[in-house]
Amino acid sequence: MPNTYQKIPLPVIKRLPRYYRHIVALHQNGVETISSKMLAARLGTTASQVRQDFNCFGGFGLQGVGYNVQLLVRELEKLLFSGGELSAVLIGAGRLGRTMAHFLDVQAKGFKLVAAFDHDPEVIGRLLGNVPVQHVENLVEFCKEHTPQIAMLCIPEKSAADLAPLLPELGITGVWNFSNYDLSANLTGIAVENVHIGDSLQSLGYRVHSPAE
Amino acid sequence: MPNTYQKIPLPVIKRLPRYYRHIVALHQNGVETISSKMLAARLGTTASQVRQDFNCFGGFGLQGVGYNVQLLVRELEKLLFSGGELSAVLIGAGRLGRTMAHFLDVQAKGFKLVAAFDHDPEVIGRLLGNVPVQHVENLVEFCKEHTPQIAMLCIPEKSAADLAPLLPELGITGVWNFSNYDLSANLTGIAVENVHIGDSLQSLGYRVHSPAE
Repeated sequence: MPNTYQKIPLPVIKRLPRYYRHIVALHQNGVETISSKMLAARLGTTASQVRQDFNCFGGFGLQGVGYNVQLLVRELEKLLFSGGELSAVLIGAGRLGRTMAHFLDVQAKGFKLVAAFDHDPEVIGRLLGNVPVQHVENLVEFCKEHTPQIAMLCIPEKSAADLAPLLPELGITGVWNFSNYDLSANLTGIAVENVHIGDSLQSLGYRVHSPAE
Repeated sequence: MPNTYQKIPLPVIKRLPRYYRHIVALHQNGVETISSKMLAARLGTTASQVRQDFNCFGGFGLQGVGYNVQLLVRELEKLLFSGGELSAVLIGAGRLGRTMAHFLDVQAKGFKLVAAFDHDPEVIGRLLGNVPVQHVENLVEFCKEHTPQIAMLCIPEKSAADLAPLLPELGITGVWNFSNYDLSANLTGIAVENVHIGDSLQSLGYRVHSPAE
């Protein structure tokens, strides 16, 4: 289904989950229709931005009468979740890795954790759900055999830099990257989401110290 | 120090930690000077963007000879870390909350966890470092007495929506928000960083399913 729409700009794709969250909340509150203007106000953006974004996917409704909220929920779910479950491997099963693997496997929709890897003997053998942490030396063979689509990187910057050139060979097509290493620039044909938790905290600290912004 | 610079645009502030990470890496690799062009290439941006951003803080050096990397490290550290330690409270000490509190307290620079709150009897009394999780009914009194600056929200959307209007009264000046609730639109005078982990995973899933982008 999503393949119908070629070349959706990346910023639009990144905004889809936020639209979805807000529209689900509206639906749960019993709202039946909403104008692009009201939706934009709720999201802190402009009506023209909302319309442009939705037009990338065919528009989701008639102008002038507002969007049908239930229809929007359905269309966004088709876009976000109709592609089938994606299998994911965790690389780096420390504290952050285990928490994020749990999030992906249990709280998120459309993803399944199929393996976890680390090199720390303290962590190897530990269960994440029913997935035991394996030694990272098994990673290549596992990927060859099971062709997981997503790699979650929860490893130090240096290890991520070393691993990056191997990812295409492993057949990985999406990386959820929590390492400090910026993956995006160097990988072609692989979708990357860098989640730099430390960056958000540092910029928060800056803003608290200098509230003039 | 940061107060010298009035009205730095928010997107520039949000890019500072990323500049800092890359410049520290360059410094560690023995690079002594770098042009805005080379730095931009590394960051996947443009030289003019780099120069514009740095000019917000006085420019960090002379044009034409490249930036002195060691000086850049020092200047960015002054901006990001010279404001003194910020005290933080965790609200919601579930799995994600505990992991993020550990990150803030142990891995990040410039922050200290001073209290943690939850309403789950299974979690209350548990130690995060040497901070015991308290019942959330103590939150208001704690904030009155200890005036923490940062609140980390790791609670469900509905609870975050209920809590939001109380934050100014609690004296909180910065929120590191992991809940699904979008805080930014409604709070004035409080810096907010929304870290919607689920959003990044959803848009990654979309991109893996429709690689035409």
